[in-house]
Amino acid sequence: MSAPALLVPRTRAGIAERLARSAATVQGVHTVTSQVPDWLVQQRRSVGAVVRRIPFAELDHWSFSPGTGNLGHDSGRFFTIEGLHVTRPEAEWQQPIIVQPEIGILGILAKEFDGVLHFLMQAKMEPGNPNLVQLSPTVQATRSNYTKAHGGMEVQYLEHFLAPRREQVLTDVLQSEHGAWFFQKRNRNMIVEVEEDVPVHDAFCWLTLGQILELLRLDNIVNMDARTVLASAPAVPAETRALSSDADLLAWFTGERTRHDVRARLMPLREIAGWQTGEHAVSRIDERFFRVVAVSVEGAGREVAGWTQPIIEPVERGVVGFAYRLFDGVPHVLAHALVEGGFLDTVELAPTVQCVPSNYAPLPAGDRPRFLDVMLDAPPERVRYSTVHSEEGGRFLNAESRYLIVETDEATTPTQPPPGYHWVTPGQLNWLAAHSRYVNVQARTLLAVLDAALRETTAP
Amino acid sequence: MSAPALLVPRTRAGIAERLARSAATVQGVHTVTSQVPDWLVQQRRSVGAVVRRIPFAELDHWSFSPGTGNLGHDSGRFFTIEGLHVTRPEAEWQQPIIVQPEIGILGILAKEFDGVLHFLMQAKMEPGNPNLVQLSPTVQATRSNYTKAHGGMEVQYLEHFLAPRREQVLTDVLQSEHGAWFFQKRNRNMIVEVEEDVPVHDAFCWLTLGQILELLRLDNIVNMDARTVLASAPAVPAETRALSSDADLLAWFTGERTRHDVRARLMPLREIAGWQTGEHAVSRIDERFFRVVAVSVEGAGREVAGWTQPIIEPVERGVVGFAYRLFDGVPHVLAHALVEGGFLDTVELAPTVQCVPSNYAPLPAGDRPRFLDVMLDAPPERVRYSTVHSEEGGRFLNAESRYLIVETDEATTPTQPPPGYHWVTPGQLNWLAAHSRYVNVQARTLLAVLDAALRETTAP
Repeated sequence: MSAPALLVPRTRAGIAERLARSAATVQGVHTVTSQVPDWLVQQRRSVGAVVRRIPFAELDHWSFSPGTGNLGHDSGRFFTIEGLHVTRPEAEWQQPIIVQPEIGILGILAKEFDGVLHFLMQAKMEPGNPNLVQLSPTVQATRSNYTKAHGGMEVQYLEHFLAPRREQVLTDVLQSEHGAWFFQKRNRNMIVEVEEDVPVHDAFCWLTLGQILELLRLDNIVNMDARTVLASAPAVPAETRALSSDADLLAWFTGERTRHDVRARLMPLREIAGWQTGEHAVSRIDERFFRVVAVSVEGAGREVAGWTQPIIEPVERGVVGFAYRLFDGVPHVLAHALVEGGFLDTVELAPTVQCVPSNYAPLPAGDRPRFLDVMLDAPPERVRYSTVHSEEGGRFLNAESRYLIVETDEATTPTQPPPGYHWVTPGQLNWLAAHSRYVNVQARTLLAVLDAALRETTAP
Repeated sequence: MSAPALLVPRTRAGIAERLARSAATVQGVHTVTSQVPDWLVQQRRSVGAVVRRIPFAELDHWSFSPGTGNLGHDSGRFFTIEGLHVTRPEAEWQQPIIVQPEIGILGILAKEFDGVLHFLMQAKMEPGNPNLVQLSPTVQATRSNYTKAHGGMEVQYLEHFLAPRREQVLTDVLQSEHGAWFFQKRNRNMIVEVEEDVPVHDAFCWLTLGQILELLRLDNIVNMDARTVLASAPAVPAETRALSSDADLLAWFTGERTRHDVRARLMPLREIAGWQTGEHAVSRIDERFFRVVAVSVEGAGREVAGWTQPIIEPVERGVVGFAYRLFDGVPHVLAHALVEGGFLDTVELAPTVQCVPSNYAPLPAGDRPRFLDVMLDAPPERVRYSTVHSEEGGRFLNAESRYLIVETDEATTPTQPPPGYHWVTPGQLNWLAAHSRYVNVQARTLLAVLDAALRETTAP
């Protein structure tokens, strides 16, 4: 017995094409692209926030637990900083890590103006951003935010993401965040389209994808949350051929997950080896990698008037880059199946290079991260993209990296790469980014700019 | 600069079609299907194994750790049984759980005979199988197995799975296992095709997919490991329309993962509340769900001559079933986004019903699992599939469930299902099963038989 029902095509037509049209539109209906950086500066002035480093003792409602030494909020909400013990056959280490099991929403509202999708972006202050205010998704809310654990204001536009009608959702996927600093964190990345008029509140503006891509050429303008949401959006299938089929790519990835035997368990922060706790920082005795510090935020117009919080500060600026080659005319980037202790499952696809070089300065040259010098020594004409971006300013203080896309050759990056590396096309990376935990957050930043960066430089 | 290179189509043609041809072939070149059950009985006799329940004190090299009470092997390998503490907003519980972080290989070797793919299946003894010997994948090996942690024999045919050439791999994906009993367990599900002749060792035979599907109509013949591998294989895209698009299905699934706030942490087995440890069993005080017990295996011809091990024994036979309806001529099954404490991430798609009914007997009728009575009370002409299968006999003792596919209607299973349920087509389920952690192991057993079961009963 067959029931009559309104079936729909399994493949929803047109979303990728409409996103591509928006990406090709560099003039928006509402805002002039070149004015956005100044607008962000003005927003920063009007927020008037001051971020100060403070000793842990000045944290308000945050404290080290007497038993475990874990750093947490009195309410039991937000996040904790605990210890992590990672065991691999070839290495073992302990480190502090942010534990925040709840899933936040990173949501961008989209709407057509003059037949072109525009995206409602927010000028948002976050204490860890080097310039405080960056272009952010429409909504960027932890569950504590939107259940108002800290008694703050309403999250504007949140209702569009809590219960959107299905046909409005352009993308909706859980994506991982930094596995070196977060324990198994994931956020919900959404783009939701509205047809009705929505009010444009102060500190919001509509931009086309083309405008956002132009702004992604500038340092520290588009924040991490906006980058990962944009990377999760479906792209128009570009290439039908690649160095390996999609099935072979999955099989290789499965092999990488299997090959790495990673055991990661939380442990008391008090007991981690190789780290020391001072008045101002929890840091490695050899001062590599990162520190846990504390900041106070004063006079901010954010959800609450002011607050203090712990935050993670990397020791220095990082380098994050994809090696890029054309094979038989088809663009490929060299993905790295990278272990990070906080990943929910062993490895994810990372850029070719992802490191803070100074962490390796004390080590013999042979222990330098592979392909790092290919990135650092690239002649200018081979650098297709080079921009400084910072990571999520709510949890990371001045966590800047130079993001690079560098054209390479057979001598530096062979067609048959070393174990753990695999050439993938932008289309394959986009296909995998539609699912959770394939593409790490740094690779997603580069994925967001990949098509635009390659198009500009490879067009005749 | 573009390098010449041998590109391949991203979509590898023909694999799903060749699998479908094998599924349609009910006579194999080597073995008569009807003789397989007898052959399994003969194999059981020749193995001559005897499985005895023993008290924990008779376990050899296994013991409860003095500190945590966790049950483990002296070598630190194989698996441990620890405590798990699951916290949800609406519920909280503690339970024993198997911790086995290493990834095993479940691999089936495939080869064409007379133009049709045949699969090399093994008659394998496992102590928890009700009838001891069942039809298993060619290779079924934990990392301890294939690194010979227990000093056993070579794993036959293993070399085909450790380093297959890419073009030989028909499917290769990490799949979850029982989240109620395993902590974040996953195994590598592989089908690898060979062109060369391979020797057929004792206890192995070549069967077509059609033959295996016939055997899947019989109780306790095809083991869980074989079922999950077959479910992971690509199917020919059947339907292009569905009640919801693939993108909407993913968005719904993302919403389900976000909606459920599940915190699961390992804890000492000694400290779990609501359970008691006796000489023969760790069991719930109210005797619901399952027990941890111990068995000895004697006179087996498996990897080693004999052994003892802990094993999990459910209290009674379960019911696992998909409600099935045709919408506008297109088959759909009702998937349930189910929380299991041991899942790596919150929920996976489970069958409409998955429970042991007697666990709910002490509860008020309103707390009975939803849709259970639709399964149990179905008139015979609506039952499209009904077979008893047992779960992985290496870890679970007599863990039988009746697997059902039942045709339902609007009155019992409405087009708009309750929250947490979603109508999906067989093709959508197969598409998701190509990736990790979408489709749980019980749903994969039903997925393996779904097309065949529906074809038989819906053909004119």
